[in-house]
Amino acid sequence: MTAQILDGTRISGEIREKIGEEVAALKAEHGFVPGLTVIQVGEVPESSAYVKMKEKAANKAGFLSRKINLPVDASEAELLDEIHRQNEHPDIDGILVQLPVPDEFDENKILSAVAIEKDVDGFNPYSVGMLSASKDRFIAPATPVGIMELIRRTGIDMKGKEAVVLGRSNIVGKPTAALLLKEHATVTICHSRTKDLPSVTSRADILVVAVGRELMVTSEYIKEGAVVIDVGVNYTEDEKKFKEVYLDFPDFIEKLEKKGYGYFGDVHYPQALKKASWITPVPGGVGPMTIASLLMNTVTLARRRRLGE
Amino acid sequence: MTAQILDGTRISGEIREKIGEEVAALKAEHGFVPGLTVIQVGEVPESSAYVKMKEKAANKAGFLSRKINLPVDASEAELLDEIHRQNEHPDIDGILVQLPVPDEFDENKILSAVAIEKDVDGFNPYSVGMLSASKDRFIAPATPVGIMELIRRTGIDMKGKEAVVLGRSNIVGKPTAALLLKEHATVTICHSRTKDLPSVTSRADILVVAVGRELMVTSEYIKEGAVVIDVGVNYTEDEKKFKEVYLDFPDFIEKLEKKGYGYFGDVHYPQALKKASWITPVPGGVGPMTIASLLMNTVTLARRRRLGE
Repeated sequence: MTAQILDGTRISGEIREKIGEEVAALKAEHGFVPGLTVIQVGEVPESSAYVKMKEKAANKAGFLSRKINLPVDASEAELLDEIHRQNEHPDIDGILVQLPVPDEFDENKILSAVAIEKDVDGFNPYSVGMLSASKDRFIAPATPVGIMELIRRTGIDMKGKEAVVLGRSNIVGKPTAALLLKEHATVTICHSRTKDLPSVTSRADILVVAVGRELMVTSEYIKEGAVVIDVGVNYTEDEKKFKEVYLDFPDFIEKLEKKGYGYFGDVHYPQALKKASWITPVPGGVGPMTIASLLMNTVTLARRRRLGE
Repeated sequence: MTAQILDGTRISGEIREKIGEEVAALKAEHGFVPGLTVIQVGEVPESSAYVKMKEKAANKAGFLSRKINLPVDASEAELLDEIHRQNEHPDIDGILVQLPVPDEFDENKILSAVAIEKDVDGFNPYSVGMLSASKDRFIAPATPVGIMELIRRTGIDMKGKEAVVLGRSNIVGKPTAALLLKEHATVTICHSRTKDLPSVTSRADILVVAVGRELMVTSEYIKEGAVVIDVGVNYTEDEKKFKEVYLDFPDFIEKLEKKGYGYFGDVHYPQALKKASWITPVPGGVGPMTIASLLMNTVTLARRRRLGE
C-alpha cells in the first residue's frame, strides 16, 4: 500500500480562500470584518515567527489584525491589563496570547482572563470544560480543529473506529481526543508512560501523533491502512540522517539543501507511506491547517458576538 | 481466580469517620465547620433520596448542612438567585445543585453560576476544564473521586496500565478517564458506538463500567486479573432473573426477599468474581464512596477558602 498524502498546504489554502470570501460578504452585508488580536510577551524567535504567520494570514483574509508585543520585562499585571482592554474592544472578536508566557507568570490566570466569547484559542479553562463536556458552542484549539478537518477529508467514517492519540498535551493531545470522542470514535490516549507503545498505537484506525520526538513512530507503530496524522515538527541540521531517511524523496532533500536545515515529523514518513492509507507530510500537513483553523475560529466568534448566531 | 471484594461501604465508613475527626479539629483549632448546601428543584423521588443521603452524611460528619428545596414550578431565575445567595454566604463552602434540573432550564447556565471556589461537584465548565487540563487545585466530581480511591485501595500501580472506561458521561466516564490519565494510565474511552466492545474492554487492567445497562459486562468483557469497578445501579423487581444470577449468593437473595426488589450492576457480578482480581459489589461498592467523596471535596474547599490552603 502507498498512502495518499493529506496535503495541508493545499487544503488550508482552500479554506483560507473561502474565509476571505466570507469576510468580504460580512463586510458587504453587515459592515464589519472579524478582528483578531495576537499578544506576545518578549521576543522568543520561534514565537515571533508564529505570531508573524498568524498576523499575515489574518491580514490576507481581510481581518482587522492587531499584533501587540509587550516588552520582555513586562509584568503579569501589564499583560492582564492588555487582555482586559482587548476583552472590551468592540472591534476585536478573537484574542490569542502566544504561549509560552514568561515562567514567572501564572499561565492559568492569564488564560482565564481572556473573555470566553473572544477565546479564539480555546485555552481558557471554561472553554476547555465546554469542549470536554461536549456542550454546544465550544471553541476547540486550532491545531485539533485542523487535525479533525484533515481526518474528515479522508472520507473515513470515524464512528466506532479505533482512534489513538499519542501525546497528552493540553494544546493538542487532550482536545484532539475530546473531538474524536465527539465523533463517536473509540479513543485511547497513550504517552511516555505507556507500556509497549507500538502494540497500542498499532490498534489505531486513526493515529494522531503529537509528542515532539523525531521519527519515533516507525512501521511497527502503524496498523496497515491507518490514517496517520503527524503533528510533530522537529528541527534538524543533521544532513546525513536527513538524507538517509529521505533517500527516495528528492523533493525533501532539495529543500534541505536550499535552506541548510530540515524538519523531521514524529512519524517516520517513508515507512508510514508504505503502511498507512493516508499520511500528513511534515512540513505541509498539520501546520498550515492550524493557521486556517485560527481564522475559522475567529470568524465563528465574530458571527456569534456580532450577529447573535 | 476469585476476585477480592472492594467493600465501598466499609472504606466509605472509614473515610467518613476520619472526616468527622477532621471537622472536630477544624472547629477546635479554627472555629468553623465546613458548610454544604444541596439545592433541589421539585421532588423527583430518586433525587430526593440522594439529597437526603447527602444531607444526612454531612450532618453526621459535623458539617453545617443545608437543604434547599425549591418548588417544582420554581423558575430558572429563582434557582440562579438561590445559587448566588449561597455563593455569597460566608458559612457555605460547597454548593451542589442536584441533577437533573427541569428540562426547560439551561443546565449549563446553572452549573456555570456556582462559584468556582464552592463548586463541590466540579460540574462548572471551568472546573471541568481545570481537571481536563490537569491544573492544580481542581475539584473532580464525587463519583470519579470515589472510583479512584477504590482503585488505589487495591494497591495496583496505575502507571502505564491499560485502563478502559466504558461509558462517556460528563458525570462519571469522562472525568474518570481524566483522573486515570493523571495517574499515567493508558486510557481508552469506549461506548455504545464502539465496535466489538468485549475485545476493547478485555484489554483493560483496570475496567470502569458506567453505562446503566444491567449485567452487560459478562465474562468475555473482562481480562483475567483485572480490577473491575462497577458504577451501574439498575433497579429490578425481576425476582426470577435475580435469583438465577445470584444463585450462589444467598446474601443477595435474602436482601431481595426482604425488600421485594434488588439491584443489578452493569457488571455480571458472579462472572466477574471468577475472573477479576478485584470487583466492586452493587450495592455497596461505588455508591457509598460517592457520598464520602462529596464530604472530602467540601472539606478541601473549606480549607482553601477559609485557611488559604
